[in-house]
Amino acid sequence: MKLVSYVTNPTDGRDAGRGGVLLGDLVLDLPALLRWQSPASAAPETILALLRLGPAAMDDVRAALAAAEAAGPDALRAQPGLALPSADVHLRAPVPNPPSLRDFYVFEQHVKAARARRGVGMIPEWYEIPVFYFSNTSKLYGTDEPVPFPRHSHEVDFELEMAAIIGREGEEIAADDAPGYIAGYTILNDWSARDLWRKEQPLNMGPAKGKDFASSLGPWLVTPDELADKRVGSGKDERYDLAMSGSINGDNLSNDNAKTMYYTFAQMIERASQDVRLRPGDVIGSGTCGTGCILELGTERHRWLEPGDVVEMSIERLGSLRNTLVAQREG
Amino acid sequence: MKLVSYVTNPTDGRDAGRGGVLLGDLVLDLPALLRWQSPASAAPETILALLRLGPAAMDDVRAALAAAEAAGPDALRAQPGLALPSADVHLRAPVPNPPSLRDFYVFEQHVKAARARRGVGMIPEWYEIPVFYFSNTSKLYGTDEPVPFPRHSHEVDFELEMAAIIGREGEEIAADDAPGYIAGYTILNDWSARDLWRKEQPLNMGPAKGKDFASSLGPWLVTPDELADKRVGSGKDERYDLAMSGSINGDNLSNDNAKTMYYTFAQMIERASQDVRLRPGDVIGSGTCGTGCILELGTERHRWLEPGDVVEMSIERLGSLRNTLVAQREG
Repeated sequence: MKLVSYVTNPTDGRDAGRGGVLLGDLVLDLPALLRWQSPASAAPETILALLRLGPAAMDDVRAALAAAEAAGPDALRAQPGLALPSADVHLRAPVPNPPSLRDFYVFEQHVKAARARRGVGMIPEWYEIPVFYFSNTSKLYGTDEPVPFPRHSHEVDFELEMAAIIGREGEEIAADDAPGYIAGYTILNDWSARDLWRKEQPLNMGPAKGKDFASSLGPWLVTPDELADKRVGSGKDERYDLAMSGSINGDNLSNDNAKTMYYTFAQMIERASQDVRLRPGDVIGSGTCGTGCILELGTERHRWLEPGDVVEMSIERLGSLRNTLVAQREG
Repeated sequence: MKLVSYVTNPTDGRDAGRGGVLLGDLVLDLPALLRWQSPASAAPETILALLRLGPAAMDDVRAALAAAEAAGPDALRAQPGLALPSADVHLRAPVPNPPSLRDFYVFEQHVKAARARRGVGMIPEWYEIPVFYFSNTSKLYGTDEPVPFPRHSHEVDFELEMAAIIGREGEEIAADDAPGYIAGYTILNDWSARDLWRKEQPLNMGPAKGKDFASSLGPWLVTPDELADKRVGSGKDERYDLAMSGSINGDNLSNDNAKTMYYTFAQMIERASQDVRLRPGDVIGSGTCGTGCILELGTERHRWLEPGDVVEMSIERLGSLRNTLVAQREG
């Protein structure tokens, strides 16, 4: 399944977004779909509310979607509020307001290349633990949502990443069990302000202002069953053979594959959940893939981003996430 | 006012906690208090819901509390569900499930002393920007709630901090305007795992596993009007002359004053809100005050914490935050 958060009016508040399920060129409203199938069932209005109901609720959505597919588009359009043409809705991040956003650093090529560019070698600890930082959850954007160009940076970059969304609450999750905690996958653009990060770096608190002004997530939350034939390994070794690419204004800069992750999402979840409760909707980012940002490629390959630039990133099966940076008034 | 989140059954889920207001040795249930005063008014069930209603709702609570005080305890006890003896309730963190938790690093003495202990001097950038990291929001504890001793650390420390809670949504908040965005203050214990942090540090992503297993917050959210006579300076220079102290098992280790902060909460809010939307309930921690943790004092002064240790910290006017570390099964 491809789950989305959508609004029909793009000026709706940032936290808004109703749950929906893609069916061809239709978006099926999530609560309307569930009520259509079973009038007495729980009908969560948002993807986050659905995730909080756990895997059984996800199965209900899957069954309702199968019934909708069997009924056909004409029958669906006849139901008030059930089916909307994709062209009539605006997507938000699949989980516009997640409980947390952790971003890891698991692509060896990126870490090596980005460090080599600064004239430093690999950090031995990188091979011992999957490391992450917590990022801001109040500035998430879906595909085709304009992303405000940050007022306080002159070195704006993108970062091409894959993300997993947590679908069950858990703590001390063993890596071999961790795939069962993943509701699905999506694309993450961890927009970065390199000048702000350079200033923070000596203070050793990690990236905060260097990363907090925006993250893009989307276009959809794709459930793992859609990727079964792309799975490589299982349990703690579960990876996906999915091509990843990124471009600025149509100029292809980034090319990698999700299977080159050194640490798997299962290992990231094990690490994140040590002594910590993970919650449905938590976002786990992979960190930048190889060639996945200007910092790694160098400004001789591409200048830092500017207002008006269109950054588009694609991951096989997960769709395309496209955003235009828009200038805003100085604060 | 002193606002609290409370449960009557301590085994209630982690995210639970009804709003309450202290009046002498009574806890007045927040929605019951508001409905008692004005049956038709909005009656938020939680402190977070109250904060989301904005400053006018806070004024309604203040008016209702004044009416309750005038009515007297007997009249209050006669109202079903309105007044509970403090001894019958269990406090949670005032905001048990905040949208975000930012922790700054603003006490110069602590930064200097902790760095001197590692044989390194001050970082010039520290005097240029108030720096912070985002921490985990899924493991918050109120006063007297047992804190699970982390399974994966052998160098557990406390950190004595003051925290501000955001009461209004805002972005690009000028420091001079920032005090108007603060709903109140409380005490923060930013529990730390020094061994985990030492391992993460070379990877330059900031503290994640070194800090994410627990934060204590409480006992109350104290509104700024209660601190008016302790205010020093205004606008961007607003500080509070409030003594801070901390002890382990009754052994006083930490003593400082909130007025020694190099950066004010107003400056922290300006920094945090640059290109970022702050939300009601967001927690802004000051970072450790001088002498406010074992790392700074040295293990010759006190060993790392162990299961069974009781850490108590007090800030003048803000009360005392006390937690016992309890062993748990290995994960």
